[in-house]
Amino acid sequence: MRIQVGIVGAGPAGLMLSHLLHQRGIESVVLDTRTRAEIEGTIRAGVLEQNSVDLMVETGVGDRVKQQGMVHHGIELRFGGRGHRIDFADLTGRGVTIYPQHEVLKDLIARRLADGGDIRFGVSDVEVEGIDGDAPMIRFTEDGTERVLHPDLVAGCDGSRTRTRGLIPARQDHFRQYPFAWFGILAEAPPSSDELIYARHENGFALISTRSPTVQRMYLQVDPDDTVEQWSDDRIWSELHARVDGEGARIVDGPIFSKSVLQFRSFVCEPMQHGRLFLAGDAAHTVPPTGAKGMNLALADVHVLSRAMDRYFAARDRTALDAYTATALPRVWRAQHFSWWMTSMLHRMPEASGFDLNRQLAELDAVTRSRAGRTLLAENYVGMPL
Amino acid sequence: MRIQVGIVGAGPAGLMLSHLLHQRGIESVVLDTRTRAEIEGTIRAGVLEQNSVDLMVETGVGDRVKQQGMVHHGIELRFGGRGHRIDFADLTGRGVTIYPQHEVLKDLIARRLADGGDIRFGVSDVEVEGIDGDAPMIRFTEDGTERVLHPDLVAGCDGSRTRTRGLIPARQDHFRQYPFAWFGILAEAPPSSDELIYARHENGFALISTRSPTVQRMYLQVDPDDTVEQWSDDRIWSELHARVDGEGARIVDGPIFSKSVLQFRSFVCEPMQHGRLFLAGDAAHTVPPTGAKGMNLALADVHVLSRAMDRYFAARDRTALDAYTATALPRVWRAQHFSWWMTSMLHRMPEASGFDLNRQLAELDAVTRSRAGRTLLAENYVGMPL
Repeated sequence: MRIQVGIVGAGPAGLMLSHLLHQRGIESVVLDTRTRAEIEGTIRAGVLEQNSVDLMVETGVGDRVKQQGMVHHGIELRFGGRGHRIDFADLTGRGVTIYPQHEVLKDLIARRLADGGDIRFGVSDVEVEGIDGDAPMIRFTEDGTERVLHPDLVAGCDGSRTRTRGLIPARQDHFRQYPFAWFGILAEAPPSSDELIYARHENGFALISTRSPTVQRMYLQVDPDDTVEQWSDDRIWSELHARVDGEGARIVDGPIFSKSVLQFRSFVCEPMQHGRLFLAGDAAHTVPPTGAKGMNLALADVHVLSRAMDRYFAARDRTALDAYTATALPRVWRAQHFSWWMTSMLHRMPEASGFDLNRQLAELDAVTRSRAGRTLLAENYVGMPL
Repeated sequence: MRIQVGIVGAGPAGLMLSHLLHQRGIESVVLDTRTRAEIEGTIRAGVLEQNSVDLMVETGVGDRVKQQGMVHHGIELRFGGRGHRIDFADLTGRGVTIYPQHEVLKDLIARRLADGGDIRFGVSDVEVEGIDGDAPMIRFTEDGTERVLHPDLVAGCDGSRTRTRGLIPARQDHFRQYPFAWFGILAEAPPSSDELIYARHENGFALISTRSPTVQRMYLQVDPDDTVEQWSDDRIWSELHARVDGEGARIVDGPIFSKSVLQFRSFVCEPMQHGRLFLAGDAAHTVPPTGAKGMNLALADVHVLSRAMDRYFAARDRTALDAYTATALPRVWRAQHFSWWMTSMLHRMPEASGFDLNRQLAELDAVTRSRAGRTLLAENYVGMPL
């Protein structure tokens, strides 16, 4: 089967790329080893920059995010027992929208199918070949039958466990591991706060976020080797209260129905392309969740990539495709820096000295006390225009 | 000899404290083991915040700094072969004044002596005793004779090699060593730039500063174990050109007449007081020179301390004296953070990974590209009002 673009992975990057290409008259096939139910049912957090919401709305997949997304006009940083609000609206005129990633995926899948898009769920044995030459191929198995796609271009959107990344020879894998993990819970409780709370405490970081009026998502910094079994409900609530409660804030408890441990790392693959293969989203880079940038970077990547592919198909001009890495990477590195900054400013490093802890508090004080400091944080949180 | 305040050390902190106390009618004796010629002849760099210049002018020791100090309205950060100006005047309405520390000391000594102040140069065997009780003593030897002062209060202003700090029991010494040193030169050459240049390069940091129209001060980040002998003039100029030259900047060479290696560390002693002893300046804290905060912190400390001592002598009210550490430390920690930030953003850490180097460039890009980022840097560089 000949096709213009073969897309490996039906996550935010792959589905949005397929959607954006379709709007430019370019047809693609999207392959994923997961079923549609698995993709739509894997509950993931989601903070959308205004740019991401705008992209969804402008391309006709924004109806639900406009209706159901919760617009947040700020966040709170807590330290020294007090809250310090970062007022996005006042500082930048913009905000972010809380809308879970799997809801974005539902919207994109529904729209692609309504537009006659070709998404193959639950396939196996996906193998990309020939990206160095003029005739790449993607082999895969569907319903027990081996099939072959003959795309002009291939997009590797297969997430952090990517196999397409391995096809890029002589790449640099920039990696940073952090000496802690996040312990995440879902609890049946009313929201503890209207906005996200990022708390720095001697015991470690805590994040209070909200999922719905009755379900809350909270995280605790823990040892990277900690297991779910080590954290009883009592221990979790006790630690959340210790790290967050204080002037103007009090955690509301409730039954915990999900516990998980999330490893923390930063990763960038450079270049993000080789021959006819182009990586986007988590296949190319991973950000720690502190900066809320993961899904936004995936959408920003394919925004760039879809334009470059359009130019290629419209005029057989590879200039923009060749410049894809150089065009996409500055935003990736800025997001990496921002995520590292938020992480380093709010977490307790296991090896932190008294100097480090006092300096960290002085940094939080300097950033929150100064309008320029709050603006720098807010600008990065709400995101640069695409 | 009975005296209100005994001051150990005739550096910026000790001399300015004596001067400020005199203006409030409080008399002091200043002791220093160095001769006046040594103190006035030890050439040290100097960047004065507007606050420091204002303090000098308002208290009548600012004539020469107003005439001879060079007011700088910005600095340049260089990276990726390009300069990025931080325009202090536009961003904060303030600036800094380049005026060497030994010139400040000359001004203070001249004024203290003109005011009948008591400065004992070249003394030895200085011993502070009894700070826990009501009757502290300072023993010292002057011209072969042992003498004793009986001050009400003692100020430890004896610099980073302080002995008075050791009298504070149960203190916390917050310390951070950096894995590099600065190699400093003085060269006979015209200025390479109107303003200071802070350059980040793959080979390491370089700082271009100016001393006078014919003498320039430049620094290179080097290995902490490097010696003066390992750096020939040719090697120094070659490295300075490599790290700084580029679009809009070119180092001007000249005969090098001084070479030295400066170790890099951050230090804070907490508390800064015990009983009747109060530390100020480098005796209490050391900042790496990247943030140009050293002399300014010394002056800020004694600004706080002189007011607290005034209240004590005027009303026998120890409240402000007891709060000295709590009042002075926030500024110290903010300066420590700023100095650490400038250092970490501009130096090459020996252990830096590809991730770290790219993140560092992204940080410089984020800070210099955003008006908020430039303002945050400028606010800290020009300093908070006292």
